[in-house]
Amino acid sequence: MSKPLNIAMIGYGFMGRAHSNAYANVSHYFDLPYKPVLKAVCARDKSKAEAFAAQWGYESVETDWKKLLERKDIDAVDICTPNNLHKEISIAAAKAGKAILCEKPLAMNVAEGEEMCDAVEKAGVANTVWYNYRRIPAVTFAKQLIDEGKLGRVFHYRANFLQDWTISADLPQGGAALWRLDAAAAGSGVTGDLLAHCIDTALWLNGSIKNVSAMTETFIKERKHTLTGKVEKVTIDDACTFMGRFENGSLALFESTRYARGHKALYTFEINGENASIKWDLHDLHRLQFFDYRDAGPLRGWRSIHVTDGDHPYMKHWWVPGLSIGYECGFVHQVADFITGMAAGKPVGPTFRDALETQKVCDAVLASAKSGAWTEV
Amino acid sequence: MSKPLNIAMIGYGFMGRAHSNAYANVSHYFDLPYKPVLKAVCARDKSKAEAFAAQWGYESVETDWKKLLERKDIDAVDICTPNNLHKEISIAAAKAGKAILCEKPLAMNVAEGEEMCDAVEKAGVANTVWYNYRRIPAVTFAKQLIDEGKLGRVFHYRANFLQDWTISADLPQGGAALWRLDAAAAGSGVTGDLLAHCIDTALWLNGSIKNVSAMTETFIKERKHTLTGKVEKVTIDDACTFMGRFENGSLALFESTRYARGHKALYTFEINGENASIKWDLHDLHRLQFFDYRDAGPLRGWRSIHVTDGDHPYMKHWWVPGLSIGYECGFVHQVADFITGMAAGKPVGPTFRDALETQKVCDAVLASAKSGAWTEV
Amino acid sequence: MSKPLNIAMIGYGFMGRAHSNAYANVSHYFDLPYKPVLKAVCARDKSKAEAFAAQWGYESVETDWKKLLERKDIDAVDICTPNNLHKEISIAAAKAGKAILCEKPLAMNVAEGEEMCDAVEKAGVANTVWYNYRRIPAVTFAKQLIDEGKLGRVFHYRANFLQDWTISADLPQGGAALWRLDAAAAGSGVTGDLLAHCIDTALWLNGSIKNVSAMTETFIKERKHTLTGKVEKVTIDDACTFMGRFENGSLALFESTRYARGHKALYTFEINGENASIKWDLHDLHRLQFFDYRDAGPLRGWRSIHVTDGDHPYMKHWWVPGLSIGYECGFVHQVADFITGMAAGKPVGPTFRDALETQKVCDAVLASAKSGAWTEV
Amino acid sequence: MSKPLNIAMIGYGFMGRAHSNAYANVSHYFDLPYKPVLKAVCARDKSKAEAFAAQWGYESVETDWKKLLERKDIDAVDICTPNNLHKEISIAAAKAGKAILCEKPLAMNVAEGEEMCDAVEKAGVANTVWYNYRRIPAVTFAKQLIDEGKLGRVFHYRANFLQDWTISADLPQGGAALWRLDAAAAGSGVTGDLLAHCIDTALWLNGSIKNVSAMTETFIKERKHTLTGKVEKVTIDDACTFMGRFENGSLALFESTRYARGHKALYTFEINGENASIKWDLHDLHRLQFFDYRDAGPLRGWRSIHVTDGDHPYMKHWWVPGLSIGYECGFVHQVADFITGMAAGKPVGPTFRDALETQKVCDAVLASAKSGAWTEV
Repeated sequence: MSKPLNIAMIGYGFMGRAHSNAYANVSHYFDLPYKPVLKAVCARDKSKAEAFAAQWGYESVETDWKKLLERKDIDAVDICTPNNLHKEISIAAAKAGKAILCEKPLAMNVAEGEEMCDAVEKAGVANTVWYNYRRIPAVTFAKQLIDEGKLGRVFHYRANFLQDWTISADLPQGGAALWRLDAAAAGSGVTGDLLAHCIDTALWLNGSIKNVSAMTETFIKERKHTLTGKVEKVTIDDACTFMGRFENGSLALFESTRYARGHKALYTFEINGENASIKWDLHDLHRLQFFDYRDAGPLRGWRSIHVTDGDHPYMKHWWVPGLSIGYECGFVHQVADFITGMAAGKPVGPTFRDALETQKVCDAVLASAKSGAWTEV
Repeated sequence: MSKPLNIAMIGYGFMGRAHSNAYANVSHYFDLPYKPVLKAVCARDKSKAEAFAAQWGYESVETDWKKLLERKDIDAVDICTPNNLHKEISIAAAKAGKAILCEKPLAMNVAEGEEMCDAVEKAGVANTVWYNYRRIPAVTFAKQLIDEGKLGRVFHYRANFLQDWTISADLPQGGAALWRLDAAAAGSGVTGDLLAHCIDTALWLNGSIKNVSAMTETFIKERKHTLTGKVEKVTIDDACTFMGRFENGSLALFESTRYARGHKALYTFEINGENASIKWDLHDLHRLQFFDYRDAGPLRGWRSIHVTDGDHPYMKHWWVPGLSIGYECGFVHQVADFITGMAAGKPVGPTFRDALETQKVCDAVLASAKSGAWTEV
Repeated sequence: MSKPLNIAMIGYGFMGRAHSNAYANVSHYFDLPYKPVLKAVCARDKSKAEAFAAQWGYESVETDWKKLLERKDIDAVDICTPNNLHKEISIAAAKAGKAILCEKPLAMNVAEGEEMCDAVEKAGVANTVWYNYRRIPAVTFAKQLIDEGKLGRVFHYRANFLQDWTISADLPQGGAALWRLDAAAAGSGVTGDLLAHCIDTALWLNGSIKNVSAMTETFIKERKHTLTGKVEKVTIDDACTFMGRFENGSLALFESTRYARGHKALYTFEINGENASIKWDLHDLHRLQFFDYRDAGPLRGWRSIHVTDGDHPYMKHWWVPGLSIGYECGFVHQVADFITGMAAGKPVGPTFRDALETQKVCDAVLASAKSGAWTEV
Repeated sequence: MSKPLNIAMIGYGFMGRAHSNAYANVSHYFDLPYKPVLKAVCARDKSKAEAFAAQWGYESVETDWKKLLERKDIDAVDICTPNNLHKEISIAAAKAGKAILCEKPLAMNVAEGEEMCDAVEKAGVANTVWYNYRRIPAVTFAKQLIDEGKLGRVFHYRANFLQDWTISADLPQGGAALWRLDAAAAGSGVTGDLLAHCIDTALWLNGSIKNVSAMTETFIKERKHTLTGKVEKVTIDDACTFMGRFENGSLALFESTRYARGHKALYTFEINGENASIKWDLHDLHRLQFFDYRDAGPLRGWRSIHVTDGDHPYMKHWWVPGLSIGYECGFVHQVADFITGMAAGKPVGPTFRDALETQKVCDAVLASAKSGAWTEV
């Protein structure tokens, strides 16, 4: 019989919903030592917090996260605030001895991230950052294939995350709904929002990145700010591209943008190895494309593997072969693994420390884009 | 504030899980007049029922469905048993005044189905049959486009449902796990299991079918029976194909099989109209392929529409554009619509009566396959 | 050094061009015992014949095919006339001792076809029918895989040929440009034009068809006739569908139509075997889709094989891996093989006799569609 | 009636064949003021030249290109030699008053290219460089759409050319077959061979590139040299990637490699504009992917346009809608346009001067890769 794991959610936005879905459903599909209990949701706007609590079944509501952290009936805190609050809340939660599940990117910059890592490690609390794509079954399967040595020496890793939702010049910036367009709240634009996902996956699949040469662009220079009501300079990067070199000698080519008309949320990566190559695309999230040079010559081809069989990662817990699960599954799987790790006393990646490595690449990318020079990570 | 809708589930198999997921989650995403409460699960095997109840949070367990129907605290009964029990339970549930959500196909044959329709209509209870594919957003979107008249005169409707999981001659038939391979429990093989889905969608999208010429095949003639332990004649159809004519003058071409190596669960339909055509495929369940002849000549092409925007059916309730939801969403949407219909006192398709139309086509198909003659529906 | 093979072309339409391209180019890519020489083109309209001769480099022009057949400087006759002339010209050409390359379908019906087979076999002349798709490299590769036993027991063969060019009711029928819409010239509609291609490939890849149940439809009942200028009854089938059984126990499902909006010329076939499956599609003519159940479980997937390598059929004669060749290549390859066979004194399929088998299926299909009964081939 | 245009070919390799095919066939499909006559082929190896002449029908053979240029019966010279001979032959041919069709890249570097441009412009001879992809119909169609203003402001242009044929360390370098792996003969590796194609298309479609930051890699550092028989340092780039900025403000991201396992010859480009986006891929060379934001919201999707209709560029000269033509068509179309331009006295791109612009970008890319700094073009 599972023991309860009392969860407190801070924030109620898009990610608050995705995480809540994971807590609400993980026990339906996975047999785990702990069962999440939706104990409290915290937000400054009480009526919004109450509506969110009613919809998801949170037992109580708080409006002050500091008070929330004082509660003894909370085991774990989920931080879904804008990025500029991650550090303060995380450090306080660590001091309060709470397990922490923090939205990505870890922090506004490396310096903040290092403080946060120190805090959770000193406090000895379980911690993770929501780089959810690692646990899409096709992506986890890619990791398996790499760990089995299927690729051989790697030559190329390319990834892009393309969106198109900010092209209109009429879109404002800032405020509760659009804080991702305001560097004061978000730290950066697509670099922290989209590219960070690509980097996390890449570090996990292909090891460290040594150095980068980057380029950023802000296509729309001014937008009305929601908080001030005035047209103000846009402070985020609309697009960010970099080249680089991994420690294993392979070449990196990464791109992220919100100005790729026709792509709602196209996250794609491809790895070319000596013996085999792998491709994945968020729009067809259950397919892994796999090319194996060791197949008989005339029969070589990209295999479109529908990663929905019982012997694919996580899939025996769901439906039957051929039936897909949604984007939200990655969060469910992360909770399942996090709980398993907590019970075993073993950290499960991506930890704060893992996410700090991604932050280091992001900072190097932004520095290179500013200086125009190749930059060491 | 939603009122509770007390649900009792009969059965605990694959479909029992898919339906339970729908009840557990529908209120997280939809604001509805009733909120499903998982009141009881019923199965002959008590320990399995208890395990299922624990996993999904059902409040109580029953082992006799007749007793279950006597309970006053049950508003709606979900029938997830093998097909040969649908009639008896449905009629009893109707008499007990319960709303009914019955797995498909409706019945073992048309005669049973007619009794069932009479019973629910006489009792005046809300009723539906789980033809879940109607409410995959891309399929619902196809219905919208057709209702808007986008296609013009229809010439062709083709559909197939291809699987490959029974090819091994070592697979046994019958019993709890494999009742779908036993005509005594299932009524038919792929006709009721797979083709019925294709027919339900077709009748909904393209109207009635007039007549059919069909062919069935049982590739593996004998299999060990799980219940008797003996090698016995296989009584189901492994594959079933038919041609036919719709009332609107278009031609039908349908195929279902469990012997299409490489296809785990490929349900595809395509409709060719005078002005436009539509294609859908369960393996890429969020894409609707749409070809519009009225596009400027050189720019005509099949559009790959990723049906994940807020202005696509059901999608504003989920994530953001570009992010997909899983196979299970169709069940969630069916519960949402069923509840809305119940509250409004309006039947929501597919009702038992709608499902009877599908049953009529299935029966005509099986009769034609037997006689070798064209058969009126 | 190649010897000349003097070719005479009868007709100058679309197929006259495709065949002329093959004769003009085959020696650039293949080392063959004979080199085609474009000796004469024959058509009733002298100025059109002259224009065609000038464009393709035919040395002379005839307006009477009987005169042409009397010429001693002609080795081989290519018959690109409407179908109703195939018999008379073929028999005369055989009597004149000419090798014959006849457009498909072989004849207006089986009776004609048998006369033609008798004539060429009695005369002992090399003969072939232009079922060109056999020699698209990906299709030939499919044949190789089947001959190697890759598929095991076959369960399903499905094929369709979908076009959309006759949907407009304003299109006239008959005459030089539109004889394919006039049964008097073409014998049938899509059955002889499109379905015959599907059948030829199927018999070649999967053996004989035993029996069929078919359905035809003429969607537009009347069209202006180009020759009479009057609105007349349309005599051809616009769509033709059939189910059937192959001698090897597999099931057939075939469809052809000119009313599938969005498909210009989609010829697709798929074969499902016990161990492997194969798919091909004319729109991506260089790709063969191959699924092998013997691949390691989690790595199973449809392989998209780009059939452009040197170890793929015919491809070492063309460019380099990855570079595609066009639709016209099938004709080039057929000429290459025909010449090789002629020099070796060995018939190369599809011969008239092979094409007669396709004609038998076509006739059975049309008979079944008329009678509504299953029909033996 | 067309006048003859006497062609002399220098070289007989892969490109010699592709160009010869174009000369041999262009008049079959296009009505042109000149008809190419295959007058002479020139190569140092006489027996190879003779074999080539026999296969393609060249009337004569030369072994010394200087002698060839003295012949009065030659109108146009086609230079298919390794890159290090382009300059000398071009300048001599210009002085001899011959029209020139030169293989790409134009030259070993910008300095050479400028001399060549000066020479042909001073001599006033028609000139072109074989950047053949401009005239694949789908690519030409992309240019049409851009010229019609369909895209609006452009944000992103990305292109890659991925191959995998040099991964084996056992492959030697240099000599007649593998001069592309020897910088002394080729100037550079993938930069001049593959990236140059991407750059030519990009400059044509999206205008000038201002500056670049590039990275090159040589994965296999030493290979046996065919000419010396010794293991020697590899002097070419195996992979070359660059970021940059176009004059129109859009961002460039380009990659070329011969180490992308699974890609035989994948040349892909994508352009993201404010209103529409375009994608093309050499492996599906007849499809243009087009996304139009001005389509009705829920109906927006990438259109897969099969560029084979009569109203698509060049296609009315070939078969019927739906039927594809091969890679070689680009060369045929270039000859057709070159002849039309010659007759009209109008230069047709890409001229030597156009190709010099591509050379400038290549040189800047190589310089940036060496220095590690952003470099102006």
